Amino acid sequence: MINIAIMGYGTVGSGVVEVIGRNQDVISQRAGDKINVKYVLDLRDFPGDPIQEKIVHDVDVIINDPEIQIVVEVMGGVEPAYTFVKRCLEAGKSVATSNKALVAKHGAELLSIAREREINFLFEASVGGGIPIIRALNSSLTADRIEEITGILNGTTNYMLTKMFYEGAQYDEVLKEAQDNGFAERNPEADVEGYDACRKIAILSSLISGQQVDFEDIYTEGITKITKEDMIYAKKMGMTIKLLASSKRDGDHLHAIVAPALLGSEHPLYNVNGVFNAVFVNGNMLGDAMFYGSGAGKLPTASAVVADVVDEAKHLHRNIMTMWKNEKLELLPIEDTQKRFFVRISGDEDMRREETEAAFGSVTFVNVEGLENEFGIMTEKMTEGSYRKIAEKFDGILHMIRIEE
Amino acid sequence: MINIAIMGYGTVGSGVVEVIGRNQDVISQRAGDKINVKYVLDLRDFPGDPIQEKIVHDVDVIINDPEIQIVVEVMGGVEPAYTFVKRCLEAGKSVATSNKALVAKHGAELLSIAREREINFLFEASVGGGIPIIRALNSSLTADRIEEITGILNGTTNYMLTKMFYEGAQYDEVLKEAQDNGFAERNPEADVEGYDACRKIAILSSLISGQQVDFEDIYTEGITKITKEDMIYAKKMGMTIKLLASSKRDGDHLHAIVAPALLGSEHPLYNVNGVFNAVFVNGNMLGDAMFYGSGAGKLPTASAVVADVVDEAKHLHRNIMTMWKNEKLELLPIEDTQKRFFVRISGDEDMRREETEAAFGSVTFVNVEGLENEFGIMTEKMTEGSYRKIAEKFDGILHMIRIEE
Repeated sequence: MINIAIMGYGTVGSGVVEVIGRNQDVISQRAGDKINVKYVLDLRDFPGDPIQEKIVHDVDVIINDPEIQIVVEVMGGVEPAYTFVKRCLEAGKSVATSNKALVAKHGAELLSIAREREINFLFEASVGGGIPIIRALNSSLTADRIEEITGILNGTTNYMLTKMFYEGAQYDEVLKEAQDNGFAERNPEADVEGYDACRKIAILSSLISGQQVDFEDIYTEGITKITKEDMIYAKKMGMTIKLLASSKRDGDHLHAIVAPALLGSEHPLYNVNGVFNAVFVNGNMLGDAMFYGSGAGKLPTASAVVADVVDEAKHLHRNIMTMWKNEKLELLPIEDTQKRFFVRISGDEDMRREETEAAFGSVTFVNVEGLENEFGIMTEKMTEGSYRKIAEKFDGILHMIRIEE
Repeated sequence: MINIAIMGYGTVGSGVVEVIGRNQDVISQRAGDKINVKYVLDLRDFPGDPIQEKIVHDVDVIINDPEIQIVVEVMGGVEPAYTFVKRCLEAGKSVATSNKALVAKHGAELLSIAREREINFLFEASVGGGIPIIRALNSSLTADRIEEITGILNGTTNYMLTKMFYEGAQYDEVLKEAQDNGFAERNPEADVEGYDACRKIAILSSLISGQQVDFEDIYTEGITKITKEDMIYAKKMGMTIKLLASSKRDGDHLHAIVAPALLGSEHPLYNVNGVFNAVFVNGNMLGDAMFYGSGAGKLPTASAVVADVVDEAKHLHRNIMTMWKNEKLELLPIEDTQKRFFVRISGDEDMRREETEAAFGSVTFVNVEGLENEFGIMTEKMTEGSYRKIAEKFDGILHMIRIEE
């Protein structure tokens, strides 16, 4: 029997208890031993809940119990999770976590402690919920140099953009509806401003480079400025708009960005709708691959956490995670990235055609019925720096959205 | 340094040499040691090729060399691959293979030899080429009971069906074009009759059940009877037609089938086009997930083989593959599976409406312009056995295609 402790009895924590309970037989078989939840750490009590007898309020009970070999951290937030996890690892206990904030900030250090102790720090559920992208990078795509990883990593914003695309709704309406349905929080900032996706792509960028990528360095733009009108243009061009978190290799460096992007219908991420997440990967040998699934939700996330527990149970005294060094990777400045831009411009197209081409060079004009006194253009490929220089001096730019290709 | 031998220097074998050569640095880093190709077994010589000096014609050179720790088998076919692989494993060498015929037929036995010897027999590339579905089932989706696995597992037929759907071409034309482009073989039977997909779903079915599923037991229907007209009906219904290989749990048993199926546009496999493969998985905790990528091709397949070599290098004396027992799993009879059926019927709809409803019960009629003297129906859900009983006695059935939901 392998005894584990769960730190945090919120949505994911109770999901972990449920998954272990319901799939006990297959889990024991795969782990090679029965997994027993011995403690659940929470500040609260849960009278009447079957786990009440396992509730402890003091983390030292867990850390000092030599019977506990694996600890699940599903409290969220950097502190006290960081202190607790570090102490568990130092006490020789493997840790599985779903906590993206913790992993983005302290992943390199916690991995190195686990490596020294020949135990494991795993975090499959921290990116893409139930999508097994981290284990894929760590143990499946090992023959490849990963050239690109681009994901739809936030279910809330994808749900909202899907609604805007298919129903022609405005941002404020869909946000309210998402909040009413429980798909968005009352304070939606972490989702709609792209902060959540940013931490996740920071983790993936660190894994594909083997170095520390600080999330603070990643250019991040949310979806709060995306309008119904933008979606009308997107449809006209045979595209959709998604919040993409992306990391692309350029020599030994990476370009990383979180921003809404226009996506053509042939792109594997085009059809990822609703609360689903997906991660597109390009390897220099493998070519294109994509992983799709539930990016959040109690049971899918808990399923990923428990899969990490199973892996840790199978590797109790053997470190299995590829290294992610503490050494910081400098990202390339966003000004140097090359792409095409879609720009909405106010005024009459015929009147401004010459001026627009003089400024942006060769462009494709886009018009949609019902949107008067404005027009759209798609530029040729140029650096973001060049675009910014032009845009600074050009009157009447209503909105710019990058085009993903 | 870890010495390996490659058995077979065809497309995949030369791809393995290329992947190891080009990505030497990342591969060594992840394997924890340099991977060196010491021998290449082939009946032919390759004068002028850098591997010529490594060519051996006798498998005993490999088997008797204690320096060889890992063997790559990419010859294809059951024999002599089976004899060679078994001897390598018995000599304590881990084996990585892309050979679906070998794995479908002898997987259980070869896995059990590897397990006894504390070495590994891995076969990621045998299903879905570069898509890491086997490692996902073995080490990522371990907290779940897998309820369904449905894949587009053959690139040739998917390329053909995609062409037929988008270009309105007939079967014979696209087959010829696929052959001219090298996407289909001169003798295309293994692909178009579904035999290739059948072996692959047999492997996946064995892995999700943990028991031997014999490919001979799986009902298999190819795409040779799919016509341009079927595609016109599919479009009219907002669907497409794909060759699906599927395994669905029903209690402790599985329903398995390979057959063309109608698929609605919301299904994650709907947009998998051209030579790409994809595998849809439903877990009882995870919900829906999908894995997408290159199902074949020299480098994607070689990338998967080399990833297995890396995993074997990291686990030289430790068995990591979940068990797949020799004990045979009886599949449920196809007559007991429940689904809706699309049926094309000759004659005039108005004249045959009453008779059709009397036979099939409540149905949805489908008509397409330009197809005279025939009509289509979609039945309600019924067992295949019931459908067959009705169809036997019903005159003028032109074609039946199952509907996947």
